[in-house]
Amino acid sequence: MAVLVPYAAARPKTRLSDFLDSPERVSFSRAMLADVVDAVVDSGGNPTVLATEPVELDADATVEVDDRPLSTAVNDRLAAAADDGDDSTAVVMSDLALATPRVLSRFFDADGDLVVAPGRGGGTNALVVRHPEFRVDYHGTSYLDHLRVARDIGASVREFDSMRLSTDIDEPEDLVEVLLHTDGRARDWLLDAGFTVDVRKGRVGVRRER
Amino acid sequence: MAVLVPYAAARPKTRLSDFLDSPERVSFSRAMLADVVDAVVDSGGNPTVLATEPVELDADATVEVDDRPLSTAVNDRLAAAADDGDDSTAVVMSDLALATPRVLSRFFDADGDLVVAPGRGGGTNALVVRHPEFRVDYHGTSYLDHLRVARDIGASVREFDSMRLSTDIDEPEDLVEVLLHTDGRARDWLLDAGFTVDVRKGRVGVRRER
Repeated sequence: MAVLVPYAAARPKTRLSDFLDSPERVSFSRAMLADVVDAVVDSGGNPTVLATEPVELDADATVEVDDRPLSTAVNDRLAAAADDGDDSTAVVMSDLALATPRVLSRFFDADGDLVVAPGRGGGTNALVVRHPEFRVDYHGTSYLDHLRVARDIGASVREFDSMRLSTDIDEPEDLVEVLLHTDGRARDWLLDAGFTVDVRKGRVGVRRER
Repeated sequence: MAVLVPYAAARPKTRLSDFLDSPERVSFSRAMLADVVDAVVDSGGNPTVLATEPVELDADATVEVDDRPLSTAVNDRLAAAADDGDDSTAVVMSDLALATPRVLSRFFDADGDLVVAPGRGGGTNALVVRHPEFRVDYHGTSYLDHLRVARDIGASVREFDSMRLSTDIDEPEDLVEVLLHTDGRARDWLLDAGFTVDVRKGRVGVRRER
């Protein structure tokens, strides 16, 4: 399956700025992107990174540069795929560090004109699109918006219930999930940067030691 | 399947105190408990609420009062089940407001001497126990602790990947998940209390209007 992996190359992961400086945020976000691309490839998918500027990537994906807003860039590819008669396209966010080949295989194989993996806070972390008229709108509570769009065009919807695909790594408290549940480059990056799991007063977070 | 639903009846959900006063937190936590019990019953499970003090519950479950710490109370029941030769017992937390009969059926049917649904931050939100020697330890990063216990006793482990079971409702930002992804008493409670989904600067949360 053709899999789009959008990547905002400039100033990624600003909400991690209390823990990581700007070059570190770029480096960490690239590690997550490479992990996601690897997982897509290992699940049998064919990834294209849609990047807002050129990126060097140590993983097996085509990189297309498109500096337009996320939804515009994705919708352009969905329209082209529909014109070409492609029957399905997936969109997988580049910060889903917990994605594995196993969960992505199940996700790509799930039935539905639209398969949606919600993120926390009403986001849309991953999509399989099998309806030629479906277009994305990532602004706001995109999960509800995408359900509405599907209903409007008569597309069947499958909600895909996965902790791994629901966990986008945006906030400092998300870093512990990478340490606990993954073994790829993003986890290695955090360990190299001195992060460890920290248990304090029954709450679990991360601590940085250097 | 016998399903234990532990419930801390006194001072529940203290981390919601910025949004809800103490009687409201009790009332909201009871609504979530009733939703979880309903979902267990509708999935074919046989729920027992393990409450730290007597509770009136508008749902179809036995209530057993046990004021000992959570792990002690649960382990006492696991030991009794093993003595009785019961081959499986589940433990499902009472604040999993997003649990549905569908996901619980899949969870109870999953293979493994131990089936674990992790929560965010290294917690253990739900377990199926099919090994007579397994005991819980809910302190700290219980997810890792439970994997280690399973390894030590030679029990096979299945990680159960579910956003719905990973979402325990503890923090104010969790409330939006109840509004977005459920249709039970807990959601009705929040709507009656004036909560709505709030989209601001691209972040999604809740707002309380009265």
